[in-house]
Amino acid sequence: MSTRIEHDLLGDRDVPAEVYWGVHTLRAIENFPITGQAISSYTELINALAAIKQAAALSNNALGLLDDRRTQAIVAACEELRAGKLHEQFVVDVIQGGAGTSTNMNANEVIANRALELLGHNKGEYQHLHPNEHVNMGQSTNDVYPTALRIATWSGAQQLLQAMSVLRQAFADKAEEFKDILKMGRTQLQDAVPMTLGQEFMTYAVMMGEDELRLNEASALMLEINLGATAIGTGINAHPDYAPLVCKQLSAITGIDLITAPNLIEATQDCGAFVQLSGVLKRVAVKLSKTCNDLRLLSSGPRAGFGEINLPARQAGSSIMPGKVNPVIPEVVTQVAYEVIGNDLTVTMAAEAGQLQLNAFEPVIAYSLYRSVRHLINACHTLTEHCVKGITANRDHLRALVANSIGLVTALNPYIGYAAATDVAAEAHATGGGVYDIVLARGLLTREQLDAVLKPEALTQPRLEPLVASANDKA
Amino acid sequence: MSTRIEHDLLGDRDVPAEVYWGVHTLRAIENFPITGQAISSYTELINALAAIKQAAALSNNALGLLDDRRTQAIVAACEELRAGKLHEQFVVDVIQGGAGTSTNMNANEVIANRALELLGHNKGEYQHLHPNEHVNMGQSTNDVYPTALRIATWSGAQQLLQAMSVLRQAFADKAEEFKDILKMGRTQLQDAVPMTLGQEFMTYAVMMGEDELRLNEASALMLEINLGATAIGTGINAHPDYAPLVCKQLSAITGIDLITAPNLIEATQDCGAFVQLSGVLKRVAVKLSKTCNDLRLLSSGPRAGFGEINLPARQAGSSIMPGKVNPVIPEVVTQVAYEVIGNDLTVTMAAEAGQLQLNAFEPVIAYSLYRSVRHLINACHTLTEHCVKGITANRDHLRALVANSIGLVTALNPYIGYAAATDVAAEAHATGGGVYDIVLARGLLTREQLDAVLKPEALTQPRLEPLVASANDKA
Amino acid sequence: MSTRIEHDLLGDRDVPAEVYWGVHTLRAIENFPITGQAISSYTELINALAAIKQAAALSNNALGLLDDRRTQAIVAACEELRAGKLHEQFVVDVIQGGAGTSTNMNANEVIANRALELLGHNKGEYQHLHPNEHVNMGQSTNDVYPTALRIATWSGAQQLLQAMSVLRQAFADKAEEFKDILKMGRTQLQDAVPMTLGQEFMTYAVMMGEDELRLNEASALMLEINLGATAIGTGINAHPDYAPLVCKQLSAITGIDLITAPNLIEATQDCGAFVQLSGVLKRVAVKLSKTCNDLRLLSSGPRAGFGEINLPARQAGSSIMPGKVNPVIPEVVTQVAYEVIGNDLTVTMAAEAGQLQLNAFEPVIAYSLYRSVRHLINACHTLTEHCVKGITANRDHLRALVANSIGLVTALNPYIGYAAATDVAAEAHATGGGVYDIVLARGLLTREQLDAVLKPEALTQPRLEPLVASANDKA
Amino acid sequence: MSTRIEHDLLGDRDVPAEVYWGVHTLRAIENFPITGQAISSYTELINALAAIKQAAALSNNALGLLDDRRTQAIVAACEELRAGKLHEQFVVDVIQGGAGTSTNMNANEVIANRALELLGHNKGEYQHLHPNEHVNMGQSTNDVYPTALRIATWSGAQQLLQAMSVLRQAFADKAEEFKDILKMGRTQLQDAVPMTLGQEFMTYAVMMGEDELRLNEASALMLEINLGATAIGTGINAHPDYAPLVCKQLSAITGIDLITAPNLIEATQDCGAFVQLSGVLKRVAVKLSKTCNDLRLLSSGPRAGFGEINLPARQAGSSIMPGKVNPVIPEVVTQVAYEVIGNDLTVTMAAEAGQLQLNAFEPVIAYSLYRSVRHLINACHTLTEHCVKGITANRDHLRALVANSIGLVTALNPYIGYAAATDVAAEAHATGGGVYDIVLARGLLTREQLDAVLKPEALTQPRLEPLVASANDKA
Repeated sequence: MSTRIEHDLLGDRDVPAEVYWGVHTLRAIENFPITGQAISSYTELINALAAIKQAAALSNNALGLLDDRRTQAIVAACEELRAGKLHEQFVVDVIQGGAGTSTNMNANEVIANRALELLGHNKGEYQHLHPNEHVNMGQSTNDVYPTALRIATWSGAQQLLQAMSVLRQAFADKAEEFKDILKMGRTQLQDAVPMTLGQEFMTYAVMMGEDELRLNEASALMLEINLGATAIGTGINAHPDYAPLVCKQLSAITGIDLITAPNLIEATQDCGAFVQLSGVLKRVAVKLSKTCNDLRLLSSGPRAGFGEINLPARQAGSSIMPGKVNPVIPEVVTQVAYEVIGNDLTVTMAAEAGQLQLNAFEPVIAYSLYRSVRHLINACHTLTEHCVKGITANRDHLRALVANSIGLVTALNPYIGYAAATDVAAEAHATGGGVYDIVLARGLLTREQLDAVLKPEALTQPRLEPLVASANDKA
Repeated sequence: MSTRIEHDLLGDRDVPAEVYWGVHTLRAIENFPITGQAISSYTELINALAAIKQAAALSNNALGLLDDRRTQAIVAACEELRAGKLHEQFVVDVIQGGAGTSTNMNANEVIANRALELLGHNKGEYQHLHPNEHVNMGQSTNDVYPTALRIATWSGAQQLLQAMSVLRQAFADKAEEFKDILKMGRTQLQDAVPMTLGQEFMTYAVMMGEDELRLNEASALMLEINLGATAIGTGINAHPDYAPLVCKQLSAITGIDLITAPNLIEATQDCGAFVQLSGVLKRVAVKLSKTCNDLRLLSSGPRAGFGEINLPARQAGSSIMPGKVNPVIPEVVTQVAYEVIGNDLTVTMAAEAGQLQLNAFEPVIAYSLYRSVRHLINACHTLTEHCVKGITANRDHLRALVANSIGLVTALNPYIGYAAATDVAAEAHATGGGVYDIVLARGLLTREQLDAVLKPEALTQPRLEPLVASANDKA
Repeated sequence: MSTRIEHDLLGDRDVPAEVYWGVHTLRAIENFPITGQAISSYTELINALAAIKQAAALSNNALGLLDDRRTQAIVAACEELRAGKLHEQFVVDVIQGGAGTSTNMNANEVIANRALELLGHNKGEYQHLHPNEHVNMGQSTNDVYPTALRIATWSGAQQLLQAMSVLRQAFADKAEEFKDILKMGRTQLQDAVPMTLGQEFMTYAVMMGEDELRLNEASALMLEINLGATAIGTGINAHPDYAPLVCKQLSAITGIDLITAPNLIEATQDCGAFVQLSGVLKRVAVKLSKTCNDLRLLSSGPRAGFGEINLPARQAGSSIMPGKVNPVIPEVVTQVAYEVIGNDLTVTMAAEAGQLQLNAFEPVIAYSLYRSVRHLINACHTLTEHCVKGITANRDHLRALVANSIGLVTALNPYIGYAAATDVAAEAHATGGGVYDIVLARGLLTREQLDAVLKPEALTQPRLEPLVASANDKA
Repeated sequence: MSTRIEHDLLGDRDVPAEVYWGVHTLRAIENFPITGQAISSYTELINALAAIKQAAALSNNALGLLDDRRTQAIVAACEELRAGKLHEQFVVDVIQGGAGTSTNMNANEVIANRALELLGHNKGEYQHLHPNEHVNMGQSTNDVYPTALRIATWSGAQQLLQAMSVLRQAFADKAEEFKDILKMGRTQLQDAVPMTLGQEFMTYAVMMGEDELRLNEASALMLEINLGATAIGTGINAHPDYAPLVCKQLSAITGIDLITAPNLIEATQDCGAFVQLSGVLKRVAVKLSKTCNDLRLLSSGPRAGFGEINLPARQAGSSIMPGKVNPVIPEVVTQVAYEVIGNDLTVTMAAEAGQLQLNAFEPVIAYSLYRSVRHLINACHTLTEHCVKGITANRDHLRALVANSIGLVTALNPYIGYAAATDVAAEAHATGGGVYDIVLARGLLTREQLDAVLKPEALTQPRLEPLVASANDKA
């Protein structure tokens, strides 16, 4: 294998001649053989790093610190990256020590070597364009890495918001489809009072909508960046005009309205925005899982369960039980939810463990947030397309459960009184009889009155039905 | 209010004349107004502290370091505490800084002042018997507090084991009672194959029994103590014979076979045994919650749910819905489980945050473990007495669900083949018909053969029924 | 003991004659002997329940459903409760099954019996004024309990915001006091570049301020209530005008601008707002703990640690080590943080486990949130008063560390170049010498230039010092 | 692309002709596009599945249920898999619904198609050898999947134990190397009393050793399998001799002493053993993180920190700060620890959510445990090789800190009394002077006596030095 020699603080090392990364990346490969998953898998992060390096080069050029030739080469290399090229050169592990230094140096080296090629030099001829001196000019890992992470996370959150909105609409569509289907509501898994299946499904849409609001709020916190902070936020060695300039350039490149944090020292060490976002992702996970658990309950059966709705059959459920079909899509979504909740704990612990002027554990925060966002996007998608859109209702069974329910008696309270209602409920329990028949047999209400009180629109909203003449009145 | 003056490193302070605690406790009261819950609520901890102080006094006396008169007074005071007296004098907050120093000093002061009284002195006349010099002789908070916590936790764990064993027996009794009741088993909330309700309840007994084994293992780790470690485990200022002697004395006083940790430096800083125990409590919580969720599912209804079993009615379920009864006991147990799982996280974080020669966060570990153990004991008790013992089965409904199930077809696989079984299942799905009738109608098996294959003992164990002459053979 | 007989769904029971609670509360006492902590300890919850019952009575009266005499008696009883009377009558356990039904019934019974007394009747003479029929009129546990919990939590959150703001100001005051004290910043616990101690403390103020913003947002979600939802949110048996009317009444009574949730079915089952608030409390905990860890690090020593600042001595640190003082206040705050993070997990699991139209596990959510909020308030208070306000700095030691640091060389990069700076750093490492002296000895900069570049205001902000004439120029 | 047609419950589908997986796998690919990580990445799981299918075929053959020709083909295919071939055909996502059915079917299909080829047939000609009928004979996902997971997890745990043992030895070697280096011990980050650096490092070895014991216990629980349980543990459709036979065969194939669980119904639904193992992995993580935090603290500096030890330099620490080297290896290990703790929460939630006869969420348990085990192995390895083995001590600095410490005074307590010791400590605090000099100046002890009392072997173990003649005696 052909190699080139590179040098760093610790000495000389052979680097494979054809790779764009250099000695810093080489050492990181050796130091962090943890997950086997390279940062290249985190596309948005690579793109964000490239955008930052591009913005920095342009800013340094504008400040007279970087010449036009080097600037143009760096910008061109960054644009190639942002077009999806050379991502496979981002080889350091997603979990790494050094607070992201290896990720930043991987970027500096790849961009430098690609820029060198564009300038007609060989890879490794850093005397012409240096990863640290030029690509990383005016920067520190401690402002580059958090900024890249914020932009990447924001981008992921936008995709998640889109996936949530599609899922919300699917639930709302089902709510409309099911709006006339009467069913028993349940509290604490016990039969309660009637509602419509449409009302039940609308709940899932509303919950999702509220989560979208919260996620929007939390992802907006990502837009506050700390570029210009350099090592610890004091901006040492940075030009006073650099921070506002690079923020403006980066906004233009990414098309995102970024702002510079008012206190760069705080912004450099603080992981509060990540904790907030992760907490909201946890909330989304909680709701998704609750919703999926409901779907599994409502479709339990087909004969020994609730049997109220049917989820679309997606695959054979068993090799040993002919005809069995399982709710595999809600099951996978719930598992994603549990993963996201676990990831939130990882983020929480990593944030809590930060010390003094920097949090050294941001890489595992990045890794956890990335997985949470990405897997939630995928979970929302498969839930929408492979489950919710195909749900059907067992209308007759649902209506029969209402007609046969003891819970109906609740609706009679205002007309026959709590005491009489309790007696009716007790007889129904004891005999297995129906509320309707018992009330009729006892002469508490006429058939016309019962039909009026128990019609769906009276049962499923705050509406007290006036009785023309009750059986009691007649007596 | 009458007061006495006490002195410490920070100066003089007025202490209420009638209290047994002193200046160190006073400062702790001021410093830690956190939960409002005093350590007096943790009876086992107070008893353990008293036992340790008693053992230390006896050991120091045997080593010639503490005179007989003071020894006897200290021992008498400790025995009063262990008899339940003066516990209200343990006033420092359960959550406190200082790694338990305030708890240790609270004990030293109460014991010293009670011993002073027994010797005919006034409280506060420490020149005769000093909280630090005599009660705390040869000790440090760093060995006293962890040792007390271990003994107290062990005691709590034994009570929990007892409560779990009673609950296990209640489940086993129900398993025996329900052993002949056939029902549909369910996987992924979908109808699967038949089993007995007894088999289902036996599962809960077996799970509990396995948890008892794990809890026994983990609580045995509590028996390894670090008395004699003094400040950091090197045993500085301790007599070389002290550690073995005090362990022997403490075992005799408590009736528990304690051993001295082989490496006292490690034992002084390590919280691994608490993490292990808390992890097992979490496991117990997970199982209890799973079991309670099952009980709620199986008793869901009465008419629009599974309706398989009835939990004893414990209280009216609703003010608005006449006759509604809810599964309140399983619900409260599940909530305790979630609290225990939360407590485990607190223990985990506190253990992880330990630094160098001591973990400063043991008080919150103590607080969390105490609540987990105590609440689990209470949860097991209420679940046993107020729920499991009174559970009844809806035998006819259960049998009807089996007879009506499509899942029965699984049992026919070996006799009619997977393909024919799938066709039967499909017809049952489409028509709502029963497997038994369809198989008969199709002439796949005779009535006698069907009855043989589908008898409960053939369905609920690994037993292949030999067919005398199948319908196919006749053809 | 004198008793009276009360009746419910399950039969007759003797209730102590003197208590204000009744048979429903009695059964709950028996069913939930879990923590031993009564809901009376949660003052804000009792007050909120009383306000709700008062608002409901007034609304029902306005709708012509409740007569003036009963209304006035209920209102008077509620106002007594809100003035702090009879709280000891709220005896059910904080952790309870039944989704809060026992808490609601405890309130209904206490208010009914006090109202009966005010009307000249005996306790228990419910024929005159009934806990369910009149006090609970138009209500369900399922709208009363969540609404009370939201109001109580909002009130607690406001107190926490106040405590956080006082703590923030204390940090800001210290930042001002320390603004001229130069020190070494650290990243990854390694010496980095200089900053001021004021900058370091300002960070804590800024972090706290950001948390206040988030907590404000999250607590605002508490203001959306579901009164009028009744059993499952459909508003069954409620007058169509009741929901808006009771919200208006309740706002007037509490002085809080409440709104009715747009979708009452969703609002009745959803715990998203509690998850959100708990997530933000977790964030506050993470920041507080990080800050306290920093304080402990910076004050480590006195001689073998960082020794940069001194926390006020609050109590003797050890019985065996003379003169030792420990950072007990940061330690207790960190433990509260770990408790809060554990509580958040409990809230998360309870929220996730909700099924269909109601979450049965709200009581443990209430219990967890209450402890988190209350303990954080206390932690902020003790941290402010007993620690932050009394912190002093070891100014000379801090300055010496800067002067002696190798990190100073970073500031020379722009003037002597990265390569020369690296050589200087290497010599400093090898010889133990100082950067200033080595640079001078090598003739890289003059003493005047060095003094200019290394003056505090040049080191601690983005400011590049122009050199009048560098040593290199001279060469 | 060439395809073949396959059929399942839901109809016909085109499958790429060249792949070994079939229609069930195809549907799973479509249903679970979650992580993008295929189960092929979990080598031990694929090997375990192959071993199980091989054992089942041999058992069925022995029971006369499967002919020799098919048996030999299945066995040959399984042995190829166990030799590492065709793993890339295991394409279903690691997170999947269906309780592992897709993983099991992926295995059935790959083995069937490879066996078909070995028998001279084409892929998909299932009439000759069927994935369900023959490869899956006598099995259900519900016994195959948990068994495979247990074997795979056990294998991983053994590798982890090996990695932990190497790390333990590295710490023990350092303890030996550092056994004579005196240093200050610290409690609560405050200077306490002397110890040796060897004692400090021995602690890490002892902690690791205790974790190995716990991990050994927990991984032994993996050896209890439920093969023969079939669908829900009743063993429906299984030959009564199958369970013991297949366990024996599987033990022989894997070389692991497996046993059949005594209660197969419980074993089929219970995830307690996974919760236990995950809890122990969490404990390992807690200890590793604590150890790494200590290493970072002790190596903090080089000049403004503790500066006691030096971690080997592994990479340049900063692009902006010349000469900075960071503790990147401990940092990456701590991040793995936080990931493992997060994974434990995921496992906990998944286990708790199991319902009735099966836990549908085992795939996310598998995924989480796999990552925890694998990443811990890698973390132990990099910590051993890239950090611990290269640690050096700053012997002179450590000794100077002891000599200069106020904590030395603790050792003088037994000779000069607590009161005099406190006075000495106070003077040392006030003047910055040394304890040795002050004691000498005050004539409390002679130089000879001081030297005797303060010699390392007296300070670092429970040994009270007899004084020949004290300064006080002379006085």
